[in-house]
Amino acid sequence: MIQKVNVAEKLALFHELWTPKVVAEVNDTQVKLAKVQGELVWHSHADEDELFLVLSGRLTLELRNGSVTLHPGEMVVIPRGVEHLPVALEETHVLLIERSGIRHTGDVVEARTVAGYEWI
Amino acid sequence: MIQKVNVAEKLALFHELWTPKVVAEVNDTQVKLAKVQGELVWHSHADEDELFLVLSGRLTLELRNGSVTLHPGEMVVIPRGVEHLPVALEETHVLLIERSGIRHTGDVVEARTVAGYEWI
Repeated sequence: MIQKVNVAEKLALFHELWTPKVVAEVNDTQVKLAKVQGELVWHSHADEDELFLVLSGRLTLELRNGSVTLHPGEMVVIPRGVEHLPVALEETHVLLIERSGIRHTGDVVEARTVAGYEWI
Repeated sequence: MIQKVNVAEKLALFHELWTPKVVAEVNDTQVKLAKVQGELVWHSHADEDELFLVLSGRLTLELRNGSVTLHPGEMVVIPRGVEHLPVALEETHVLLIERSGIRHTGDVVEARTVAGYEWI
């Protein structure tokens, strides 16, 4: 049974910040939705690139040598090994594309680190 | 050098139908943008799931046992091996998530089959 996913409907299903939810899996890759506000933690992923696409709000990826700020309809790939700090001054909704099984805080484990990702 | 991708700006760079353009690569996966209108061809991908996210317009994936119609903000994953026929009655802009190296017409080679995907 092939079912479509409506992004707005999925976003309405949760309110927690910094807890990405899986909405689709394609090959070894998952599409997740996240609501973020404030800042996460400096981290990197040794073996994982990570794509951020902003749906609403504004997300800055602080990098050690600069930063990238994404508005709705903008995406960036943070390559494996690159330290980054996601920061959102307002509530921001993000679509993530990353390999299944990645840990969203990378090499850092802290209070918001999710052990497994919930499907919605 | 990490550069962001603005989806609207990328869409403005091309007009050809049924010729997906690569805008990002994350791990072994590519994000492509395509403009489509009319119908492609019945095909399947033996080893590849394929994700379609509609940005504007309307896309129907005809399946052998039904169909799924996507409006903006809706996505679907067509699992490997599942025959499908993309149909768009109006010009429709689609974001695709699929493994690098996939052939968009799957097991079928026809006039619109792209040998390699252009980055924009």
